Amino acid sequence: MTIENFPSKLLENAVNEFAKLPGIGKKTALRLVLHLLKKDIGEVQRFSRAVTQLREEVKHCRICRNISDSDICNICSNPSRDHRMVCVVENIRDVMSIENTQQYRGVYHVLGGIISPMDGIGPADIEIDSLLERIEKGETDEVIFALSTTMEGDSTNFYIFKKIKGRHVKITTLARGVSIGDEIEYTDEVTLGRSIVNRMLFENFLG
Amino acid sequence: MTIENFPSKLLENAVNEFAKLPGIGKKTALRLVLHLLKKDIGEVQRFSRAVTQLREEVKHCRICRNISDSDICNICSNPSRDHRMVCVVENIRDVMSIENTQQYRGVYHVLGGIISPMDGIGPADIEIDSLLERIEKGETDEVIFALSTTMEGDSTNFYIFKKIKGRHVKITTLARGVSIGDEIEYTDEVTLGRSIVNRMLFENFLG
Repeated sequence: MTIENFPSKLLENAVNEFAKLPGIGKKTALRLVLHLLKKDIGEVQRFSRAVTQLREEVKHCRICRNISDSDICNICSNPSRDHRMVCVVENIRDVMSIENTQQYRGVYHVLGGIISPMDGIGPADIEIDSLLERIEKGETDEVIFALSTTMEGDSTNFYIFKKIKGRHVKITTLARGVSIGDEIEYTDEVTLGRSIVNRMLFENFLG
Repeated sequence: MTIENFPSKLLENAVNEFAKLPGIGKKTALRLVLHLLKKDIGEVQRFSRAVTQLREEVKHCRICRNISDSDICNICSNPSRDHRMVCVVENIRDVMSIENTQQYRGVYHVLGGIISPMDGIGPADIEIDSLLERIEKGETDEVIFALSTTMEGDSTNFYIFKKIKGRHVKITTLARGVSIGDEIEYTDEVTLGRSIVNRMLFENFLG
């Protein structure tokens, strides 16, 4: 079914707006809009307000650039976190993923992207300068790279590494290895090769 | 990844609102909201306004109950359509599907649902009375049933059939080119077009 012959301009307009969202086709957009149309006006207004309000009022943390409701985010303003340990991530979803592990008590720096010449994204387009300024202050003991293990992620790591390597900061990256639950025979060669070279004491694994 | 540890209440609120939509999980909701967050404020406001405006301002055609921007919809106010031929459909998507075939020049009646005792939907919950009133006026020569070929669709057809069979109205149904169990909106245009051209007497179908 092609989506045309709209009986209403208002309907067509709402469907077109929804269809601009990534992964939402016209047909799905129509289904979502007709769903909202069946709801109470109050509910629909609440939906719209939540979206507009987020866009209009959300802030980025002055320290780590994470999304925040205040000038300083919850993590950066938490005195029980280790503020001398900064984990560098690409985006806010990565922060949420790492927070979900409950294994990290340091703070973050959200780059808001990674260096990707193919997409025209250079070092100046992401939050690298603000990271360097943070490190410049001398309040950081360790910088942990937690970017995707892609070519872009590696380039970004390397770019930052070169910028800060002279300074008194330990630079680490997420352990690379076989994922928990993975079958050895299906693990790619590079990962498996590195895992055997960088093998760890079983005692440490046991913790 | 579970979606929790939101760094912002505003973000969490917007994600929760999106996740209420059918088929949108928390993870997809987060992706959509972060997409909107990257857009200009104007674009986001346009999105929200389109949705609210639709819900607040859209009308239902006084004659056929289809969604409309005015009291009488485009189809019912079109003098070149055959107003003595009324096609009974479940919802507005079915109208759009049949219009797309370009095989039908009559008008519609949108029930807004089908009789479904399992879901607690009886004849009084859908636009059957308004259909009967239309027929009562004697301005209808033919009623075409174009409901889904499910048990609920058949029950609804049969209910309406019993109510109007005494009157001077030809009662037809879509030719059974539509496979049993198929939903109208997912039927391909050719099959759907043929089905409306080769519609058959409801009596014969019962036979």
